[in-house]
Amino acid sequence: MVDSDTLFKVSYGLYLICSGNAGKGNGYISNTVFQVSSDPVKFATCCSKNNYTSGLIMETGAFSVSVLSTDVKPQLIATFGYRSGRDIDKLAAFNVRYGQTGVPLITESAVAVFEFRILETVDVGTHFLFIAGLLNSEMIDATKEPMTYRYYREVRKGFAPKNAPTYIDKSSAGAKS
Amino acid sequence: MVDSDTLFKVSYGLYLICSGNAGKGNGYISNTVFQVSSDPVKFATCCSKNNYTSGLIMETGAFSVSVLSTDVKPQLIATFGYRSGRDIDKLAAFNVRYGQTGVPLITESAVAVFEFRILETVDVGTHFLFIAGLLNSEMIDATKEPMTYRYYREVRKGFAPKNAPTYIDKSSAGAKS
Repeated sequence: MVDSDTLFKVSYGLYLICSGNAGKGNGYISNTVFQVSSDPVKFATCCSKNNYTSGLIMETGAFSVSVLSTDVKPQLIATFGYRSGRDIDKLAAFNVRYGQTGVPLITESAVAVFEFRILETVDVGTHFLFIAGLLNSEMIDATKEPMTYRYYREVRKGFAPKNAPTYIDKSSAGAKS
Repeated sequence: MVDSDTLFKVSYGLYLICSGNAGKGNGYISNTVFQVSSDPVKFATCCSKNNYTSGLIMETGAFSVSVLSTDVKPQLIATFGYRSGRDIDKLAAFNVRYGQTGVPLITESAVAVFEFRILETVDVGTHFLFIAGLLNSEMIDATKEPMTYRYYREVRKGFAPKNAPTYIDKSSAGAKS
């Protein structure tokens, strides 16, 4: 038996993940970014198969991660978290840098940024799990606090959109487990 | 170029992961437990290839996760985080329950407990990444605060042991990226 409230006791950060290139770029908000190997440094992240960015990650084989700070601009969350790149150019309103792989990098509202190259893609059902090698990382503002998913929910009153791996449909969480 | 300080800006929780059975059980402390798919609920976790528990997880195809609270007993961290199951019976000093799969479950110092069955194992270098389906979850004490890895480092003054995926050897983090 699954008690879906227990899922909220797992801790996460909050991140902006971008992919594509200067001609066609996009990004989304994710809470699942984590280191999975220490030497060399590898990370894993999830992306909903429905996300426009998942196609760009598959095409480019690379992505960037911005560690969002607790003072992240609401406009950034609203744009990247709750709109689709199929409908708007999400990057248009932001200052964008481009990494070694050509992926967009956003430093606004970021504590640190990372650039990754995909090593392996695992199909985990609703999401792809990307396992990736760390190419570059840069501290943007070490004095800022990294946003946690809990802080986002409890202080900023945010919620997981339907494409998040942690989206909880309370009517089905128990039955489907 | 990799700035290893940026790796500390990624957020994690702190968990006790157990596997094996009533005859031979073991557990270790992990910071990498995260949901990767929403329907059905799947999680991923990492285990060092050197950990005694990784062999037990491979044998049983199952594991449990205890979400540790901020008031976790130092003895629990000392036993499961810094000793090897090859040398001692780590479970001997604790009250142990057994799950549907037969894996040990520890509710002491836990906010919630989960039981998983492995669906896929990915070799990510120093660690195995286990992708697993959620079988059962139970709230143990919702009034307690889940321990974050940051709280563990900054308030409880803990550090990552060498087998953690987030272990940082500052002499090599840049060169190996």
